[in-house]
Amino acid sequence: MNVVRLIVVVALLAAVPVMADEMPATMAAVLEASTEADWESVPQERLLYLFLDSGTVVFELAPQFAPKHVANVRTLAAEGYWDGLAVVRAQDNYVVQWGDPHADTAAARSYGSATDRIDGEFFRDPEGLDYRPIDSNDAYAETVGFVDGFPAGSDGERLWLAHCYGMLGAGRANAADSGSGAELYVVTGHAPRHLDRNATLFGRVLHGIELLSSLPRGGGPLGFYADEKKRVPLRRMRLGTDLDEDEQMQLRRLRTDTQTFARLVDVRRHRQEEWFIDPAGHIELCNVPLPVRTAR
Amino acid sequence: MNVVRLIVVVALLAAVPVMADEMPATMAAVLEASTEADWESVPQERLLYLFLDSGTVVFELAPQFAPKHVANVRTLAAEGYWDGLAVVRAQDNYVVQWGDPHADTAAARSYGSATDRIDGEFFRDPEGLDYRPIDSNDAYAETVGFVDGFPAGSDGERLWLAHCYGMLGAGRANAADSGSGAELYVVTGHAPRHLDRNATLFGRVLHGIELLSSLPRGGGPLGFYADEKKRVPLRRMRLGTDLDEDEQMQLRRLRTDTQTFARLVDVRRHRQEEWFIDPAGHIELCNVPLPVRTAR
Repeated sequence: MNVVRLIVVVALLAAVPVMADEMPATMAAVLEASTEADWESVPQERLLYLFLDSGTVVFELAPQFAPKHVANVRTLAAEGYWDGLAVVRAQDNYVVQWGDPHADTAAARSYGSATDRIDGEFFRDPEGLDYRPIDSNDAYAETVGFVDGFPAGSDGERLWLAHCYGMLGAGRANAADSGSGAELYVVTGHAPRHLDRNATLFGRVLHGIELLSSLPRGGGPLGFYADEKKRVPLRRMRLGTDLDEDEQMQLRRLRTDTQTFARLVDVRRHRQEEWFIDPAGHIELCNVPLPVRTAR
Repeated sequence: MNVVRLIVVVALLAAVPVMADEMPATMAAVLEASTEADWESVPQERLLYLFLDSGTVVFELAPQFAPKHVANVRTLAAEGYWDGLAVVRAQDNYVVQWGDPHADTAAARSYGSATDRIDGEFFRDPEGLDYRPIDSNDAYAETVGFVDGFPAGSDGERLWLAHCYGMLGAGRANAADSGSGAELYVVTGHAPRHLDRNATLFGRVLHGIELLSSLPRGGGPLGFYADEKKRVPLRRMRLGTDLDEDEQMQLRRLRTDTQTFARLVDVRRHRQEEWFIDPAGHIELCNVPLPVRTAR
């Protein structure tokens, strides 16, 4: 009995070459059959780098959903706002959050040229965006799908980014305009979709999420580090355009407006790998993989 | 600006006393208003303890769904099968898995009186179980709800445990009867519900999941530890009834067949805490909290 293989052995199977008369039947085969045009290089001005002692986390920003937050975050990054600050919270099955541990006190760091309050950018008009709904029975939204590589939900009139694993958001207090992007969180647990339209999402992790998701949990209420010494120091956070070339990562993500992506969703809905005995025939928004490649 | 509080400040709010003419409006208030009858003490014969160097993880077993797997696991635990074995896999946003790293080799540990193959217990007849569906638009099942504190799905004829965060399952190879409970996994990411009815779930974590979910990721394919030295040693795994009293934990979980639980689902569907600006009005199965209390 090959016990070590176990669940989802399939991802390891070599992709089979695609014949003209057959469609790729697994994710590996779909990716193998993809062409250059299926992938999008993310420009450095849309990449935000978080440098930790353990490595680097890279986020893609979503100015098309949260232009004010993205602009403010760019200013904060350029001015080194986060340098030497810390991860202050790691709540199991929920979020990891970082910013200024002294934000509420007289010792709070200055926002420099940035602002400390921005109106919530919780949703937007779908006009002008290429929203591609998928066939899925969603618990929270009338339709769900993807825009420019980001998971989204809609009620027909409004379009919003969805709190899937790896999404990047701006913390806020109770007032809708009390966030600024200075205090950030990443979803590291089962999608807390009840936060959709209640918090501003403005990006997602493309690389290195395990550096955040595997942090020791905070131990205090809401996962804040009860022991200040356990907080995880941030070396710095920078936009790609402010980095030396040797620090930049060249990341390409699968486009979500292609036939290849539609096929990917389909092969994940109807799993044909040998391991599956009773394929679901269904898929949920946050279970759709969003492949990223590191270019040479 | 109270930036440190941020998301879900609410869980910290003191529960308000319930007046005869008002219903508790938050989870904290619902739990505060609960009575002894709303809670169930889990007997030691249904508790499985995993002892790690970092602490103890405690699982509640579900013999009503997977009697053969639970029986086999009880035998394996009683005979010390797992003592000195290891966590072999930590795949980000998916599962943590443990068992015999040499299971496929001549050095494999003996199963003792236990068996190494059990027919999959992927679903069962709902007859005889008190399944309580909730109102939720589910991506994967016709109805979803709870049975004896466990999340479940159904198509009307079959009932199955659902792969929510914290669920405990038996790894298997491709054959439906190739699992035994000797190789175990716990869901530590967004619910992989496409595994429902494809793998045998037979319990869930009641205590200590963060010891598994925050483990360093494996780095190898499928999250297996590429470096064998990074595997996490298991001290031992035991049934509660085989432990000395000072090692046993007294755990009570909220019953899911009560008005209190129905109210809990409702206050999580319609979040009334001040932080929420646009409450979802909806809830998804795996976002329903399943509170556990450690008794004195």
